[in-house]
Amino acid sequence: MHQNDFDALCIGNAIVDIMARTEDDFLTDHNLVKGTMHLIDAERAETLYTAMGPAIEASGGSAGNTAAGIASLGGRAAFMGKVADDTLGGFYRHDMTSAGIVFDTAALENGAPTARSMILISPDGERTMNTYLGACRELGPDDIDADTVSAARVTYMEGYLWDPPAAKAAFRQAAKYAHAAGRHVSITLSDPFCVDRFRAEFLDLLRTGTVDILFANDSELKSLYETGSLDAAVDAVRHDCPLTAVTVGADGAIVVENGKVAKVPAVEIADIRDLTGAGDLFAAGFLFGLARSWSATDAARLGALAAAEVIGHVGPRPATSLKDLATQAGFDV
Amino acid sequence: MHQNDFDALCIGNAIVDIMARTEDDFLTDHNLVKGTMHLIDAERAETLYTAMGPAIEASGGSAGNTAAGIASLGGRAAFMGKVADDTLGGFYRHDMTSAGIVFDTAALENGAPTARSMILISPDGERTMNTYLGACRELGPDDIDADTVSAARVTYMEGYLWDPPAAKAAFRQAAKYAHAAGRHVSITLSDPFCVDRFRAEFLDLLRTGTVDILFANDSELKSLYETGSLDAAVDAVRHDCPLTAVTVGADGAIVVENGKVAKVPAVEIADIRDLTGAGDLFAAGFLFGLARSWSATDAARLGALAAAEVIGHVGPRPATSLKDLATQAGFDV
Repeated sequence: MHQNDFDALCIGNAIVDIMARTEDDFLTDHNLVKGTMHLIDAERAETLYTAMGPAIEASGGSAGNTAAGIASLGGRAAFMGKVADDTLGGFYRHDMTSAGIVFDTAALENGAPTARSMILISPDGERTMNTYLGACRELGPDDIDADTVSAARVTYMEGYLWDPPAAKAAFRQAAKYAHAAGRHVSITLSDPFCVDRFRAEFLDLLRTGTVDILFANDSELKSLYETGSLDAAVDAVRHDCPLTAVTVGADGAIVVENGKVAKVPAVEIADIRDLTGAGDLFAAGFLFGLARSWSATDAARLGALAAAEVIGHVGPRPATSLKDLATQAGFDV
Repeated sequence: MHQNDFDALCIGNAIVDIMARTEDDFLTDHNLVKGTMHLIDAERAETLYTAMGPAIEASGGSAGNTAAGIASLGGRAAFMGKVADDTLGGFYRHDMTSAGIVFDTAALENGAPTARSMILISPDGERTMNTYLGACRELGPDDIDADTVSAARVTYMEGYLWDPPAAKAAFRQAAKYAHAAGRHVSITLSDPFCVDRFRAEFLDLLRTGTVDILFANDSELKSLYETGSLDAAVDAVRHDCPLTAVTVGADGAIVVENGKVAKVPAVEIADIRDLTGAGDLFAAGFLFGLARSWSATDAARLGALAAAEVIGHVGPRPATSLKDLATQAGFDV
């Protein structure tokens, strides 16, 4: 790896999480589907915020969490995403740069505020997200710096980028730069509803080779192939993508590489507090391992370790050094 | 208790906490005394924030945390404090009102921003606070509503209110209203440096009967009486205040009532994560018990339970229902 290489460039919606514990009745009362992400407008955001309980705030966003995970493992990460020039945008930038992540995307001035997601955490740790995109809607192809993309072993992007229209173009621009530089392109499907909104386009990304590495959880992969059978979905993706990592909650992960399927167990933890960030941190470990030319199953094992850390506490990013944790677990990070 | 009575009215600096883990070297490098609160200006706040690691944000402030603890126990609490009409001020008000706390103090418009404290959490859980007071400097006697004070069994105030000049006058105004209504007045000494700044005035509050119930930790009480001996400090306070609760970390609490001294053990916990809010939550349990006419030692036992909850996780307020926790522990809350 060159001095100036990045293990990964992560591109996604730059979102501040506003997290509160909730009873499941609250979800029902507000027509929310547990475990999914709902896009909301400013008015709905106000209504939900008024109704929800006392909260804590932390920088989040799927790709941002993955970048933080890679940095916590001791890797070199870059991030692109759009915050506003406001208090929350300042927090977001601080939390990225002070973690050692290169984050140079210009802030939006005189526009919508920094995005926020109201995350309702159920007693079983499952989280239900309500996202007001705000400034994220202004991320576009002009925000994609070719040099940074070219310097990254993999450019990792959220399926969520399909929601703000200009961000989709940014995604395609980044993929073009990455492949021109001989680098890899990766996507996470993000959310089963998100897959439902953009199924044909996501399949097209895989089948045209725009994406080389796919992340999904079981619900998302089943949604992609419109099947109730995980086995059928795994079988289908064998033909569509050279490398896929599927997280399956307590059952660990399934790695599908060049048509071959392998399983990696989850890392058991005593008490699941908050599932926010589980998939994002799995991706962090997996991408970190790949950047060091580990086997995909070893990379998935590191992903499982990183995911276990983040679900043991409230908040979407590591609360302790993943590098220390991985070293203690015998990984050569 | 009348329908509209409050178990307690808490008056204090309305502060959003910005919390990050730190190594102790960082404290030394930035000339910070571990375990204490430093007042900082906007420029110093910027410098420290840039230097500190990724953070999470939560509503805090000593008296605000106590109000949140009383609400979590199922009690009825009111709060007075000054936020600005900005994003953090909105978070603060939400976190109070959605917890069921009555918080009617008008927000400051076109002035300094909402106060924030950068809280650095050491590996052993000790916290070092760096507070930019911002809008808190504008809390004054006009913000003290006589009806609310009169409706509260006790008006509980921070020693920290002596730092913003107008707040001291607000404190005295509130004490006057409370005693006129036959209610109690309570103060926490807040911080050993704070005691050092205002020792003569704090002693005067006790000796003139302006304050009936005193909270302190061992460092603060020793600072008040300028002695290295906790026994000497406890002996001194016997003559100055009818009811004093002194928290002594892992050694629990000492209750000094009408000259008699009793000890209450700490509630043991497996893993101390963050000491922020320990004293505030002890006060919440103690005041809740007093409002229900419990003995001072029973009230201190509830305080110890509430303190144990808050030091088991990062953040200055309860992360679970203290009412449920207290019920499980056999308290009739």
